[in-house]
Amino acid sequence: MAILFIAEGDDPADYRPLLDQELGGVDFRIWPEAGDAAEIEAALVWKPPAGVLRRFPNLKAIISLGAGVDHVFLDPELPRGVPMVRLVDRSLTEQMCEYAILGVLRHHRLLPRYEALQRAGEWRKYPAPDTERTPVGILGLGVIGGAAAGKLAALGFPVRGWSRSAKALPGIACFHGAAGLSAMLAECRFLLCFLPLTPETRGIIDRTTLAALPQGAYVINLARGGHVVDEDLIAALDSGHIAGAMLDVFQREPLPPDHAFWRHPAILLTPHIAGLTVAASVVPQIAETIRRARAGKPLANVVDPERQY
Amino acid sequence: MAILFIAEGDDPADYRPLLDQELGGVDFRIWPEAGDAAEIEAALVWKPPAGVLRRFPNLKAIISLGAGVDHVFLDPELPRGVPMVRLVDRSLTEQMCEYAILGVLRHHRLLPRYEALQRAGEWRKYPAPDTERTPVGILGLGVIGGAAAGKLAALGFPVRGWSRSAKALPGIACFHGAAGLSAMLAECRFLLCFLPLTPETRGIIDRTTLAALPQGAYVINLARGGHVVDEDLIAALDSGHIAGAMLDVFQREPLPPDHAFWRHPAILLTPHIAGLTVAASVVPQIAETIRRARAGKPLANVVDPERQY
Repeated sequence: MAILFIAEGDDPADYRPLLDQELGGVDFRIWPEAGDAAEIEAALVWKPPAGVLRRFPNLKAIISLGAGVDHVFLDPELPRGVPMVRLVDRSLTEQMCEYAILGVLRHHRLLPRYEALQRAGEWRKYPAPDTERTPVGILGLGVIGGAAAGKLAALGFPVRGWSRSAKALPGIACFHGAAGLSAMLAECRFLLCFLPLTPETRGIIDRTTLAALPQGAYVINLARGGHVVDEDLIAALDSGHIAGAMLDVFQREPLPPDHAFWRHPAILLTPHIAGLTVAASVVPQIAETIRRARAGKPLANVVDPERQY
Repeated sequence: MAILFIAEGDDPADYRPLLDQELGGVDFRIWPEAGDAAEIEAALVWKPPAGVLRRFPNLKAIISLGAGVDHVFLDPELPRGVPMVRLVDRSLTEQMCEYAILGVLRHHRLLPRYEALQRAGEWRKYPAPDTERTPVGILGLGVIGGAAAGKLAALGFPVRGWSRSAKALPGIACFHGAAGLSAMLAECRFLLCFLPLTPETRGIIDRTTLAALPQGAYVINLARGGHVVDEDLIAALDSGHIAGAMLDVFQREPLPPDHAFWRHPAILLTPHIAGLTVAASVVPQIAETIRRARAGKPLANVVDPERQY
């Protein structure tokens, strides 16, 4: 009855004592020291190496250490039939909303321009912001995107939201499907991506999407690097059609040192920190997943393997 | 039955046509072209020169073109008995809340540090923010401070608020009076000032207040420059006790070119733009004040001349 930790980049010492406490003792193993493969019941994973998860015949749950699971679906030998669970966590949601609001307000309130004025020692006012006439578009209306939509609407922005299938959120103008996407984009001064990365959403922020946004729109990606076609974004920034972008996620992470994003004057980038998993916050739900998996009970926050979210 | 505009720095052309439309024709005069002083019934003011307002014997309302009225009380010859009205405006409140949230999140989410990492081409993550354990203190719980307190609480920050007299706001730990101030300060990672500037609040952010904040606290002033004792703030920043400050308002505006704030590495300054008065937003309430003043009815948002707010 063992738990295997396969999450390079995360520290198992953050999880082991907390899980031990929650579960009243735990056989916690750290990949590649898996021991007897038949004893592994649950795997805590972040970007697990391909082919590893299929080695455990009694695996009852694959638990992603993040809100997204695209990193697990990269494994072509992923065992079918083992439930995959993603984190739905208050701290993660809150952090992502903070990042989104910070990105929107920083541009909306012209902070980079005022910082430049301070550096120049120049006292000059730009016109007042017009929040009521600054529509914000949200791609993805799940737990996190939906929360961000609500918080941005509470600040006075008219918020539009887009999802694959039709949704209804109070105070949000909701769009769905391919036709809904282009209708929404035409109205948005900001475009924020919260989508899961799936075969359907990969590359969704491409030249067509960017061209559908109004001149001067601002793009914020806090989902996955694979949502953006990098060269299309750079072309749209260089042409001036898109005013700027704030990017937290990249096709390859760490972002390679020679990538053009690092030094592009219209790009603010952060190293995938919009939502950081905090062990103390997520361990209770991980423990509950393990308890339920052991008891053969249905799990919460299970990913649909067809939709991949 | 004339209205006098005495607001250097504001453009009367922003107000005249809108007021004309609202009031169905208006005798709108621009200082110093006041015409017959006995005909002036209402004055729209921002930093009116001392001694001017007393010249109009039939003045029925002094209307500040902002939320604050300290600039009017600077006039030692201010006519007593003429009601002074301040603006209470959705756009102003919303803008101020945006600025407050931007200032808090920028520091809370370590944006300047991540910007420095980008400039250095370095991919490095700082620890996750702990919003639930980041108390924010609000000085002043009026229309604007109260709204900002509520919006910051909605983001997950524990919010404390301080006011001269006792108040109760849902979800906000409220403090008042001198003893309440030091009790609140000891808990605050952020201190935001929304107070009216009065003889009682002038210099409230001095060495004593700053010393009462915990090591590493961050100060945001979007009220009036007179709330801050400049040299005390600089000393607290230089000692490292205060981590940084975002300042929108100054003792003298424009901030003199040789003032140390301009180039202090821990200060972000903006040129009094946290809340800009938007004529289209405020003209309806100005027109209503004028209509009520003409009709001899009681006015809304009248300032108490004793409290000066």
